[in-house]
Parts: sequence; C-alpha cells; structure tokens
Amino acid sequence: MSQKNLELIRHSLAHLLAAAVNDLYPNALPTIGPSIENGFYYDFGNLKISDADLPKIEEKMRELLPSWKEFTKEEKSPNEAAHHPVIVGNRYKKELVDEVVSRGETITFYTSGEFTDLCRGGHAERPAKEIKANSFKLTHLAGAYWRGDSKNPQLTRIYGVAFASKKELDEYIAMLEEAKKRDHKKIGVELDLFLIDEKVGKGLPMWTPKGTAVKFELEKFTRDLERKYGYEHVETPYLGAEELYRISGHLDHFSKNMYAPIDMDGDKFYLRPMACPHHIRMYQRKPWSYKELPVRYAEISDYNRYEKSGELMGMIRVRKFQLTDGHLFIAPEGLKDEFKNVCRMISEAVTTLGLLDIVSYRFSKRDSNNKEKYYPDDKLWNHAEGLMKEALDELGFDYVEAEDEAAFYGPKLDVQAKNVNGKEDTLFTAQIDFLLPQKFNLEYIDANGEKKRPVMIHRSTVGCLERTFAFLIEHYAGAFPLWLSPVQVRVLAVSDKFQEYARKVTDALKTENIRTELTEANETLGKRIRAAETEKIPYTIVLGEKEMNAKTVNLRNNRKNTQGEMEIEAAIETLREEISKKL
Amino acid sequence: MSQKNLELIRHSLAHLLAAAVNDLYPNALPTIGPSIENGFYYDFGNLKISDADLPKIEEKMRELLPSWKEFTKEEKSPNEAAHHPVIVGNRYKKELVDEVVSRGETITFYTSGEFTDLCRGGHAERPAKEIKANSFKLTHLAGAYWRGDSKNPQLTRIYGVAFASKKELDEYIAMLEEAKKRDHKKIGVELDLFLIDEKVGKGLPMWTPKGTAVKFELEKFTRDLERKYGYEHVETPYLGAEELYRISGHLDHFSKNMYAPIDMDGDKFYLRPMACPHHIRMYQRKPWSYKELPVRYAEISDYNRYEKSGELMGMIRVRKFQLTDGHLFIAPEGLKDEFKNVCRMISEAVTTLGLLDIVSYRFSKRDSNNKEKYYPDDKLWNHAEGLMKEALDELGFDYVEAEDEAAFYGPKLDVQAKNVNGKEDTLFTAQIDFLLPQKFNLEYIDANGEKKRPVMIHRSTVGCLERTFAFLIEHYAGAFPLWLSPVQVRVLAVSDKFQEYARKVTDALKTENIRTELTEANETLGKRIRAAETEKIPYTIVLGEKEMNAKTVNLRNNRKNTQGEMEIEAAIETLREEISKKL
Repeated sequence: MSQKNLELIRHSLAHLLAAAVNDLYPNALPTIGPSIENGFYYDFGNLKISDADLPKIEEKMRELLPSWKEFTKEEKSPNEAAHHPVIVGNRYKKELVDEVVSRGETITFYTSGEFTDLCRGGHAERPAKEIKANSFKLTHLAGAYWRGDSKNPQLTRIYGVAFASKKELDEYIAMLEEAKKRDHKKIGVELDLFLIDEKVGKGLPMWTPKGTAVKFELEKFTRDLERKYGYEHVETPYLGAEELYRISGHLDHFSKNMYAPIDMDGDKFYLRPMACPHHIRMYQRKPWSYKELPVRYAEISDYNRYEKSGELMGMIRVRKFQLTDGHLFIAPEGLKDEFKNVCRMISEAVTTLGLLDIVSYRFSKRDSNNKEKYYPDDKLWNHAEGLMKEALDELGFDYVEAEDEAAFYGPKLDVQAKNVNGKEDTLFTAQIDFLLPQKFNLEYIDANGEKKRPVMIHRSTVGCLERTFAFLIEHYAGAFPLWLSPVQVRVLAVSDKFQEYARKVTDALKTENIRTELTEANETLGKRIRAAETEKIPYTIVLGEKEMNAKTVNLRNNRKNTQGEMEIEAAIETLREEISKKL
Repeated sequence: MSQKNLELIRHSLAHLLAAAVNDLYPNALPTIGPSIENGFYYDFGNLKISDADLPKIEEKMRELLPSWKEFTKEEKSPNEAAHHPVIVGNRYKKELVDEVVSRGETITFYTSGEFTDLCRGGHAERPAKEIKANSFKLTHLAGAYWRGDSKNPQLTRIYGVAFASKKELDEYIAMLEEAKKRDHKKIGVELDLFLIDEKVGKGLPMWTPKGTAVKFELEKFTRDLERKYGYEHVETPYLGAEELYRISGHLDHFSKNMYAPIDMDGDKFYLRPMACPHHIRMYQRKPWSYKELPVRYAEISDYNRYEKSGELMGMIRVRKFQLTDGHLFIAPEGLKDEFKNVCRMISEAVTTLGLLDIVSYRFSKRDSNNKEKYYPDDKLWNHAEGLMKEALDELGFDYVEAEDEAAFYGPKLDVQAKNVNGKEDTLFTAQIDFLLPQKFNLEYIDANGEKKRPVMIHRSTVGCLERTFAFLIEHYAGAFPLWLSPVQVRVLAVSDKFQEYARKVTDALKTENIRTELTEANETLGKRIRAAETEKIPYTIVLGEKEMNAKTVNLRNNRKNTQGEMEIEAAIETLREEISKKL
C-alpha cells in the first residue's frame, strides 16, 4: 500500500473513532482528528474517559466499519453550516467554520455510515473494503489544549495506530514494546548509569560512577581518534564575552537558543551555545604559514542551549551538554581533501561504536526559497554546497539531500541515527564555513608571503556525549560491548572460604585496568550469577576449591553463555584482547 | 635582627621617606606610611613623580639619615594639634587628628632630624645607628586611594624594601628578579601554554595545545591517584538550581562569591560556586549500608567564583576554574581514619608534583571571637576541630594553626604553597563537614538497621588545575619534569637528506605516546638545538648519516647536557622509564 493510501485510511479511521465516541458518549464534542505518523488521533471536548475505555471504543469502531461503504461530500453555505447539527452546540466546530469562511474557502461536510463531520476531505474511498478491522488499534489517551494553546480549554485526545495489515501493526506494536524496554531513561535508572535530579536542575543530567566509566571510555576513544587524524587538543571555557558572540553573529542569528547574559563586574558573559569563537581566538593568538595548515583543534566542549522544560528528554535533549567538538582552519585549495578526511573519521567513529546499521547521511542545505534565515551570500553558499556534494560523491557516501536543515552559516553533513522507536535524530555533523573566517578576519600567509583567508570546518567526532550515550544505551539495551561496559568483570567466590582468593584475583584484574567488582558471598551462587547477567556485566569469574588450588579462574562469558577454566594471566589476556578490539 | 626590630626600622624608614619627599617636593602632602612585609610605603597627596625620580629621593634619604639620631615624642591637645604646622593645610592629617580625638586617644607627634610627623609611635630608637644606609631601596610607585576608598582622591604611594643587611636586601631583590622571570603569565606566553583573551573574557583562560597536554597529564595523574585511594568518578554539571544552594546555605553564606542566577524557562540556575550539593544529591540517589561506607566521589569539577576585574591574576585568580574535587561520606566512627587517608593522599600528590619544598600545612579554624561568619553550632565546631587536630598530630604533620581561615561550614587543612615571590597561596584543602549532611538530611543504615547520619569530607587532590599549573610553571620556570612536558622530544635531522628517517623516528616515538615534534631542516643544527633548549624541551634527538646507517638515534638530555647514541627501542625505553617515574 502506498504511503498516500495509508494516510487516507488513517484519516478515515479518525472519523470512525469520532463516530464510535459519538455513539458511546453522545455529549462528547468532536473537534479535529488528523492522520499522523503511524496512525491518527481525534480531540474531543467534554469527554472524561480513561485508558480502560479504549477497548470498548475500538470495538465500537469495528462494529461500525462494515457500514462505512463510502464517504459522501456535501458543500454548505456559511448559513447552512451554522445550522448544521454537527455544528450547533459545538463551539469548537463553530470556530472552525468561521475560519473556513474568513479564508473564503468552501465549507464541506463528509459522511460515512451514519456519521457526518466537518472536513476538508482526504479519505479512503471505500473504508469498509479498504480498512482491515485488525490493522488498527487505539493506544493511549493524552490531554491537549484546543489549538495547542494553554489558554484554551483542555481536550481529551485519543491516539490510534494503523497499518496496511495486521502483520505490520503487530510489528509496530512489538517495536514500541521493545523501545519501551530499551528506553535509555529506564535503563539509565535500572543500571544506575545517570540520573536527572530536579533539585540539581531539569535538563542537567549527572553521570553516576558507572556512567562516568562509559563516558571516560568514549572520551579516550574520541581523543585517540582525533590524535590519529592530526588534531591538537585545547580547553576553553563555557563562558564567552558579549563581543565574541556579537562578532560571530550568534547574537543575531542564534539568540533564541541562548541563555540571558551574566554580569561579571560590569562585563556581560554568555553561557556559550557553541565553541567556534573560542577556537577561532585560539587560532588568532599567533600568525600562521600555509605550511602549518590545516590547523585542527579538538575539545570536548561544554555547550549550553535554551530548551523549554517540556522539550527536555533524558540524555537526548538537555540544557548543558558536551560536544566532541572540533574546528579546522584550512587553506581553500585544501578544503575538499580535508572535508573528505573529516568524513572518513566520522565513518570510522560510527563503525567502531557499532552504529553503522542505524545511521544514514544527510546533506543539509539552505532553503533556497527562504534565504533570510541564512547568512546572505549566494556565492559562498553555492560554492560550499557544491564542494560538499563533490566530496560526498567522491567518497561514495550514500546520502539524502535535505533543504532548510543547514546551519545559519553554512551547509552540513548530518549523521542521522534511527532511534529504537524509529525516530531519527542527528548524532554528528560536519559543516563548512566561509563566514566566520570573514567575520573574525582570519588570516594565514601563503607561499608568496601574502595574507589569505582560511576556510573553517566545524565537526564532531562522536557527537554530543550525552546524546551518543543515550543512543548507545538504547542500541545495546544496556549490554555494552566489553570496552564500554561500566563493570567488565564480576568476581564471585563460591563461598566465604574463597573470598580471600577472589580478592587477589580482583586486584590482579584491577591492576590491569580491567573494571572489576567483587561481591560478598552473602547470596547463593546462582542468584549472584543471575544478578551479574541482569546488570548486563559481560564476564563473570567464579572461584571455588578447584580454582583456588590450581591458582586458576573460571571465566564465564555471560553473553555467549560459554565458560572455561584458565590461568589468571590467560583470562587477563582474553579480556584485554577483546577490550582493545572494541568488539 | 628580630622581626619586631625590623618592623621598627621599616616604620622609621617610612618617616625618612616622607622627610626626603618633604625636602624635594615641599608641596606634597604626607598622609600615612606604615611598615609592611619586606619594607614600607608612604602615601602622598599632591605629588606628581615617576619611577625615574626614586633614586633621587633614595639619595636624599641617605643624606638625611646620619642626622636622625633619635625619635622624640610630643603629646598635643586637640587644639594644639589643629594648629601644628604638620596639620595646617593638610586635609588628610587633619582628618587623622579628628579620628584620634573622636576615639578619645592621645595625639602624639614624633620628630627625628628636622622632620616631624603625626604618629602613634613604634620606631627604631636610634635610626642613624640602627639603619644601614645600604640595606633599603625604593622599588616602585603605585596609585592608592585615600583610605582605600575609590570615592576619595588618589594619592601617590612610594614603596620601599628594607632588611637588616645589604646581603639580605640583595637576596630579596634577586628573588624578585627571579620571580619576574618565572612569572607564569610571562612564561605562559613565551612557551605558548595558555592565553587570556579579552574578547573571550577576562578571568577565563584558555589552554593552548601545549597547555592542554600538561592539563591532561595532571588529570590522568589525579584520577589514577584517586582510584588508588578508592574514589569513584562522577560527572556533574556546572549549573545548579536555586533550591540546591538554598538548602546548602550557599545563598546565605557564600552569595557574594556567586554570580547572579540565569533563568531557564522559569527555573533559576546558578553557575555553581562549589560542587558539594551535586555530589550530595548523587549520594542520595539510593540507600546506603554502613558496609558500603566511606563513599568517595571524585570529579574534576567546574567551579565559578565572582571576582572583580581588578583582582584577576593570570591562572591564579580566575572566574571559572576546575577543581580536582572530591567528597566523602563517612560513618562518624570512621572519620579520623579517613581524614588521615585524605592527608596521606594529599601528601603523595604534593611529593609527586615536586612541590614538597614549597608547601606547608595550615590548620584553619573558625575565629572564636567572631562566630557570626560561621555556621552556629559550637559543639560541632569543637568536635570537628578537635578531631582534625588529633589526626594531624597522629600523622606527625608539621602545621600551623590559623584562626578565622575556616570554611563557613567547618575547619580545613590548607596546603599552602609559597610562590616564587614569597607570597603564600592555598593550593589544596581538606575540610570536615558535619553541617551539609544535616542540611540535606543524609542517611545510611548502620549495623543495627538504624538510620544514621554520615559525616562529609570535602577535599581536593591537586587543587585547582589552573592555579596548580601556574605554580608548576613558576616552580619549574617552564622546564617541567619529563612526564609533564608539553613536548617531550624534539627530533632534528642534520640536513634534509635525513628528514625521511627523522619522520620514521618521530612516528615510532609517537606510537609509544611520547609527545614528539619533528622540525624541518630549514635552520642550522646549532640554532635548532638552542631553540629546543629555549623552549625547555627536555630531550632532543639528532639524526645524521651515522644514525641513519646504523638505524640508531642520538638522544640528548637538554637539562643534564649529556647525549648518547642508541637504538630507537633503547631511547624509547629510557624515555618511558623516566616518564613513568614522574621525575
């Protein structure tokens, strides 16, 4: 079934939902009900129900469906519409009619079965035939303000999902269940990886000891990869003076994402929304020769973005985050090659993190019909977009082009990752920028001793640590690869008698920087083994009489369900090899 | 000579300075002139001179000195004083007389030689005999407001230094010269270690690639040491909600050091001045058993402190810094032992950083005569101070006690470091805190299953990274030990012919994580060797025909001025061993 047909079916189901509610709750006031991604909803005034009522409504929909042979359309004059039974006594529908009239459009009503609704059209032609009774499901209720405005009355929204077949519906519902299980907010608490505490502040997550262990690994991986690609590390403050963001243009183009400034003894400072101006001033601390370019600065930079409380989401949408940030200063003739290097590095990062299957590349361009949002210089934009396209094509990257997704100062390559619930988010980006070098009057000396202007690339290695962490949690459902596991080995003594030996083994592993935990022998062995599995610890070492006498360990791979007795050194070697391979 | 006698001499020299200025500039208005650490000063109204005039004034002082046989004292009535030639026409002296009168004290004038001054006394009895003409020196001029208040007229302050002998004076002046050479602000620019850029913001230093290399080493050292002492690492945000600092009492007791809050969609957030509340909330995320205590959280935490522009000083006094922070949650009966562990750890840090010679320990207590500044609970204070003293004594630490230097919530052990100019600053601290556990209602379950309150220790491992970095720069005059050197080895090819081999050697060292730089063979070898020395790079590797053919390197220790030919592996081994020993 085409996406278009599916939308018509979903919209028809919204009508069917309203009809069912109308039958069961005659005092409910239907308002609007569109099709949405994966389904539909309908908002009702004067309806007090709970989730427990949904099966009954769903049943009623199935009961009505066979009688919905077709949709018939009627056009009405404003006066006829005002006296139509669908409108009379329903202030919401009345308001909609008034709007249609004020726009000078035709007022249309659609009827299927016994149910008529004010509607612009767009339905399945023969609902009873086209809609499979087992291919939709009402999922949940939500409150919604009339027209989305919190000053208006609150309505009751009923959500449903609908697909072309029962099979697709079941798959979608299974995915939702799986997504719920993998939700990083849920796993984050269960595995004690991070916490968001309202007293500390909404949108300001804290990394627990276990989460911090993962963060440190991600940081080390990032910095090692950056060194390999020729970056130098710098550290700059999360505050910036007003002038800095005045020059950069952030105050003109980005201020809605910024917090109000802080006064420091007469100087105004902003919590920085980006670190580019800092790295630019770092570059400008001395003169540069073309021989020294590209200059590549990397930093795990603190960023601050204005987010409304309602839009905050776990580790994915926060008010303060750390970007594995970097800025490159490049002679124009070297730009394409360097951009390709950046792409190669990003590709290596994605692969190592095991995210290859869930990412796609998006080439984000300016909206050519709505240029005011973007820095006004057609020539620069065309040049930057052309060059980026060439580089991507030469690399053989598989990408989609997206209009109106660029940064205000230039086009971007976005690395998009699909969330476990199917939603797409930007994980990393690489952006070409001709503008900031101009605004800050950046220079280098070329081979002829003349002053030239470098081009910049803004890019991240593994994106924002908070968001990438959230993706990794959900992708691995908390069962991280060994190198990222907060606890890599749990050591268990069969009984108290072997606890002393277990302590020695634990110390030996810790000395080799293997993150190891020893538990007390205060529960049954089976219970402790299961606990290690529940906590998604990749390896367990079990120690008893046999191992103590032979000075060996029993190393159990909790993921593969295999185990083997070996000398401590062999176990360490096995673990270190797997860690270093980042598998 | 006793310190007391030296002070009398310095005070007498302030008089002598005023006498000399009086002779040379009859219109100058003497105001006040005390003895200070290492010397004296005198403030004058209506005096316009430059540093170039100081030798002339100094000469005049020496000319007058032989005639200053003794000081004679005269008491005057308020009326007599008002008509005394020293007071008439000098609004400053007039104001001083009025104050003495209002306090009901006796007005005294002191005369030596031809010069009389309003003064409380405290002079050398026989200046001409006691003061050596070659043991003092006028050093510099400064502006100073009358009574230190910027609303008052500006005066001209003349500073002088004075010691018991010419030898001591010369030593002190040599130390000042050395301090100037070692000034971290100067070396920071020369060796490109950090920069402070007004566009980015006053008091917000940025770490360059070289500085960042040192910072990363300090961070790694800190975290390794913390792991060894049983700490877990966490990461928490540099912002905190209002309620957090309301509960902690920071808003009541510490707000003058805090910046104004930032609004985030209706919530007020503060740039955090301390991270204790964050670590406390981390602790409170779950229940704790006495068996799990002490819980030790460490973080390289971002701190923000309100500082006036005029008080900012390089990396030593900044507006945003990173503390090698930590908070411990301890069962009361384990407190003394754990405090001793903290002291041992601090002592290990100080020793490894090579700062043993410049630090001293200060036991900072509350001012028992001015208790309002401190949390009001005599019992807690006495207990905490008593216990800390016991711990220090048991450890055999050599410490001084200091009143009125405690934190508002408890007593501290301060690790004081002497700057190269002799000024003392606090590098690290360890503080016992019974108060925050109470304010946040912290708990653990004891052996009997009952709820108990833990005690906290606040402590740092190597203090604030910015300040410690400044101290290390000055202490080593930029010539860091190998493990901390931003560039550890400079590789030089004798000529272009060997550049390819030099590149291979460079890569081999880099692979072993030895920070290595290769220079082009575009200058004479001698010049390049000297450059490496000037840049304080500890090792140079020189490569020519002989080395290339033998596949060896010539490793030169730039500090010891020794060198030797060896295989690359041997050079790497030599370097790695020195690095791992942190010598």
